[in-house]
Amino acid sequence: MPAMAVLQAEGAVNAVEENLRRIDDYAARAAEQGAELLVTPELFATGYAPARVVGSDGEGIRAELAGIARRHGIALVGSTVEAAGDRHHISASLFDRQGVELTRYRKSHLFGPEEKSVFTPGNDLPDVVPLMGLSVALGICYDIEFPEFSRSAARRGADLLCIPTAVPTTGDVGGRPPELTYNAERISTLLVPARALENGVYIAYANHTGPDFTGLSSIASPYGTFLGIAGGGEELLVAEVDRLEVDRARGLNTYLTCMRPALYG
Amino acid sequence: MPAMAVLQAEGAVNAVEENLRRIDDYAARAAEQGAELLVTPELFATGYAPARVVGSDGEGIRAELAGIARRHGIALVGSTVEAAGDRHHISASLFDRQGVELTRYRKSHLFGPEEKSVFTPGNDLPDVVPLMGLSVALGICYDIEFPEFSRSAARRGADLLCIPTAVPTTGDVGGRPPELTYNAERISTLLVPARALENGVYIAYANHTGPDFTGLSSIASPYGTFLGIAGGGEELLVAEVDRLEVDRARGLNTYLTCMRPALYG
Repeated sequence: MPAMAVLQAEGAVNAVEENLRRIDDYAARAAEQGAELLVTPELFATGYAPARVVGSDGEGIRAELAGIARRHGIALVGSTVEAAGDRHHISASLFDRQGVELTRYRKSHLFGPEEKSVFTPGNDLPDVVPLMGLSVALGICYDIEFPEFSRSAARRGADLLCIPTAVPTTGDVGGRPPELTYNAERISTLLVPARALENGVYIAYANHTGPDFTGLSSIASPYGTFLGIAGGGEELLVAEVDRLEVDRARGLNTYLTCMRPALYG
Repeated sequence: MPAMAVLQAEGAVNAVEENLRRIDDYAARAAEQGAELLVTPELFATGYAPARVVGSDGEGIRAELAGIARRHGIALVGSTVEAAGDRHHISASLFDRQGVELTRYRKSHLFGPEEKSVFTPGNDLPDVVPLMGLSVALGICYDIEFPEFSRSAARRGADLLCIPTAVPTTGDVGGRPPELTYNAERISTLLVPARALENGVYIAYANHTGPDFTGLSSIASPYGTFLGIAGGGEELLVAEVDRLEVDRARGLNTYLTCMRPALYG
């Protein structure tokens, strides 16, 4: 049964060399533990700070990520800035174990004013590509919070969603009681496993850690349970994934066959 | 600030008089506690047993429910069998405090072979009707597990979803480990609050109890938290609901404005 890994770590802003060294180090560890795929957080190589990293050399970083995949013989999901004319996208790439970029996806739901001021949203849903006997689709951060996004990928055949993310810690929202506020933890503990359950898909959700980020990266099963969930610190999650579990989960929770697309309008 | 109530109780099969007496009793208690609306479980008056109750007198039961609402001056959501020609639907009705039936909805996602063998699914999404300063839509049981259903209601203006349900206990599924099985509790603890959070809506989720049902009825806030959640036994949940909280929640979690309907196809 193939295994996969999720890296939760702190990507220091504009410390590209140091961040790539960390990915390289964890790619080695993940491969040693038998993982065939490593998923890393949103804009990890540059650090997540939209206005400060928008001018980074995405193409150069992607070449480095391809080299890491090839060197350790492990598939890799890495997120980079993608320049297209005068526009910039937050993208994620899936490299195979030979370092070939199998697919690239541009984040289609930008989050918050800083991202929206410097980046342009993508206008295409992710491809679905084969890897490890599974069908993989990419998404980035805020994308997974919209049920339509993962539903679309599942209906197009995806059974594993790889989601680099950068979820900030819950801020002070004016003295309201904590149960009635924006709460970043609820994204990890509620929405991610709900997406897995309602679509019968695995989800690999890789977040930053450090003082400004929530942690709580996870690998969710197609039953909506956690095969692994990180705390607040640096962590490498490893779990086995199996196409047969997707079939079993969808046999028990028949959402994809019971849904009624014509009804929803 | 208006309050509402959810009844979790055991509806004995074909003991209509006894079950209606129980609704009447709880309507009185809910009104005493200041609730302006009481939501009761799926097919509560007949008991939930599709093949055994499909021939029940839905029209007569709805007249009784209207009388209960009027007698106690409390709005009421009750679920009954609705005959239409030679077809039968599982329906839910919202009666106002004068006993006027404001809207009726036919379950559009039938669950499991027994339901599907005796009932016909409805082909219309629920109306959105004003009550208590909120905009209310009905749904029934399996409906809420499909994100498209509640999304559609929220986009048409609903800020409170009232969901009579009948969720059976988790069965033995062939010796697989419990974390990798169908798990009815996950519907209540994961999918219901996820629907509330991702749409910024209140959800009143009223389940049966007794040996065959999961309990775990709840009132979820538009932040995806529980204002009340029942255990496994008979229980009346009461919580305050406030249209302003819907605005606040949607101001923090801007899913309805950030979603991209044109993208999902």
